[in-house]
Amino acid sequence: MPTLHVDLGPRSYPILIGAGLMTQRESFQSLAGRDVLLVSTPTVAPLYLSALRAALPAGRCIEALLPDGEAHKTLATAGRLWEVLIANRCARDVVVLALGGGVVGDVAGFAAACYQRGVDFVQVPTTLLAQVDSAVGGKTGVNHGGGKNLVGAFHQPRLVVSDTRSLETLPARELRAGLAEVIKYGLICDADFFAWLEAHVGRLLAREPDALAYAIRRSCEIKAAVVGRDEREAGERALLNLGHTFGHAIEAAGDFRSYLHGEAVGAGLAMAASLSAECGLLEPTAAERVRRLVQLAGLPVQVPDLSAARLREAMRIDKKVRAGQLQLVLLRRIGTAFLTADYPAEALERTLAAHAAPA
Amino acid sequence: MPTLHVDLGPRSYPILIGAGLMTQRESFQSLAGRDVLLVSTPTVAPLYLSALRAALPAGRCIEALLPDGEAHKTLATAGRLWEVLIANRCARDVVVLALGGGVVGDVAGFAAACYQRGVDFVQVPTTLLAQVDSAVGGKTGVNHGGGKNLVGAFHQPRLVVSDTRSLETLPARELRAGLAEVIKYGLICDADFFAWLEAHVGRLLAREPDALAYAIRRSCEIKAAVVGRDEREAGERALLNLGHTFGHAIEAAGDFRSYLHGEAVGAGLAMAASLSAECGLLEPTAAERVRRLVQLAGLPVQVPDLSAARLREAMRIDKKVRAGQLQLVLLRRIGTAFLTADYPAEALERTLAAHAAPA
Repeated sequence: MPTLHVDLGPRSYPILIGAGLMTQRESFQSLAGRDVLLVSTPTVAPLYLSALRAALPAGRCIEALLPDGEAHKTLATAGRLWEVLIANRCARDVVVLALGGGVVGDVAGFAAACYQRGVDFVQVPTTLLAQVDSAVGGKTGVNHGGGKNLVGAFHQPRLVVSDTRSLETLPARELRAGLAEVIKYGLICDADFFAWLEAHVGRLLAREPDALAYAIRRSCEIKAAVVGRDEREAGERALLNLGHTFGHAIEAAGDFRSYLHGEAVGAGLAMAASLSAECGLLEPTAAERVRRLVQLAGLPVQVPDLSAARLREAMRIDKKVRAGQLQLVLLRRIGTAFLTADYPAEALERTLAAHAAPA
Repeated sequence: MPTLHVDLGPRSYPILIGAGLMTQRESFQSLAGRDVLLVSTPTVAPLYLSALRAALPAGRCIEALLPDGEAHKTLATAGRLWEVLIANRCARDVVVLALGGGVVGDVAGFAAACYQRGVDFVQVPTTLLAQVDSAVGGKTGVNHGGGKNLVGAFHQPRLVVSDTRSLETLPARELRAGLAEVIKYGLICDADFFAWLEAHVGRLLAREPDALAYAIRRSCEIKAAVVGRDEREAGERALLNLGHTFGHAIEAAGDFRSYLHGEAVGAGLAMAASLSAECGLLEPTAAERVRRLVQLAGLPVQVPDLSAARLREAMRIDKKVRAGQLQLVLLRRIGTAFLTADYPAEALERTLAAHAAPA
């Protein structure tokens, strides 16, 4: 079975990537004898839940369906999972298994992180975005008080099973959204991968299995390596937030309904590249390549329906504020990103103005 | 400054113990330049908040008062703290400081554990129970679904400042409640300390400063050593739960209003000793010594107002259930405790029947 490893000492875990893995018993052997809380959504469950359940080892399996969508990534939704766990008298040896996209993974992971101060967690991501990003690395959480992921925990999964066949049923809009994170990995540390994406983005949009499998594997390799070196975002891991400070603000400004996370990140990548060029850090031609690849992936490069003022406001509660100053990930070239709070306020204003509606 | 250390590698921290420490600037030097969210209660704040605030380094200090009492140790209360943090745009470098007893420490600690996936936390415990137990060791959490601490996190404080002078204003009932945890430390691993308590419990109840300082220091030494060896309760740390499975059930059965945590633990210690004797593990005379010391400390040794059936029910959702079997900490002798699921169900029934009301 093709396996990657996230190397975190006692918290290390395998990522299995391949076609049909979620229906194979050997994927879940390590759960033998455990109670499982299987968390999914009304959209994903009819497609995959019974096949996955059949592949689990014998034992008690409780199902909980959460409403779809970022607007439901809340403390109240996590509270529902805790109530299900308590009502079923689940003990510390229960395994919480998330089957679905980033929202279900983030909420179920947070519920697992805090139930009885931490129980085991397994991710079975069914969207491209979750397979390349949110299911790997242990960030869990919910939105709160208008801010994205402001309440959460670092809680690594014990196992990630990425079944590439699940992408066959993924809505096209969600497939495109996942490509934003894939592009991000090329931008932060792999110019060759970025160039490969420029050449092959059409094959990815056409869902060619080989192309998708390569993009997923390379994305997971990059993320696993970064997380292995900096689990709790003391330094390098922050680079994975390229485009995300803009992206989170876009999501919040749209009340988590107008833009999918990946769409917001797509526009955020274009904005980060534009700001990097504004600051004289990045060649304008490189910024233009970023903008073009985001567009080729079918993602927005600006958000004319949102006001610059609202974006600026939403950016103020970002988690990357340090000593009152917002830190941003900027680009020196394609494949080289860095974290900085040293950029002119006017350059940020110009970037917001160029990509959003006037205040 | 008299200092103990909890040795947990990168999460190590000092415990300062002494009279007047919370009003001394040097206690809080390490917080220089940081925003502080100072969390307290309407009972404690009038006594100590302004003096403590004056001892903090210059900088922004936001105050939040939480309602007193175990019944308010809820997700909703933690949610209020997250809202305060967000409304004040507190960043990841904020320090959450809990000033008060176990409830405020547990809730504020949980809020710190999950705000932005974890911010720094400082404990300034003002009750004996918090000084000897809950402020040390990193267990945070809230009650949920009728169960005690079922939602929470391990999140070590950066600093604990135990000002023994705060015990001067502590209600007598709360002082007695704290003694339950002190007795527990003697029982699990220090027969000499237990004997010292038998001889000096009157001095503790009379609040003799030297006796209190000794009891607090010895309790913290024992807890720090156990937590240093087993931070996340994979093994030995579970011994600190002696009397707590009974105790949590007593608290839950009384809707967290009839018994203080320490009172419930006092009765729980008597019940654990009684069950140990029932099982032929502990000399009956030793069980009688436990019962007598709990009584001398002014704590209940039985709960005739609660039904055995309700206690049994509440014990079923304890965090120490493994593979459907409830694990209990029992005593082999005074100073030697062990964790086991191997006890006759009838012995447990007899213990419940002897200490609670018939079903």
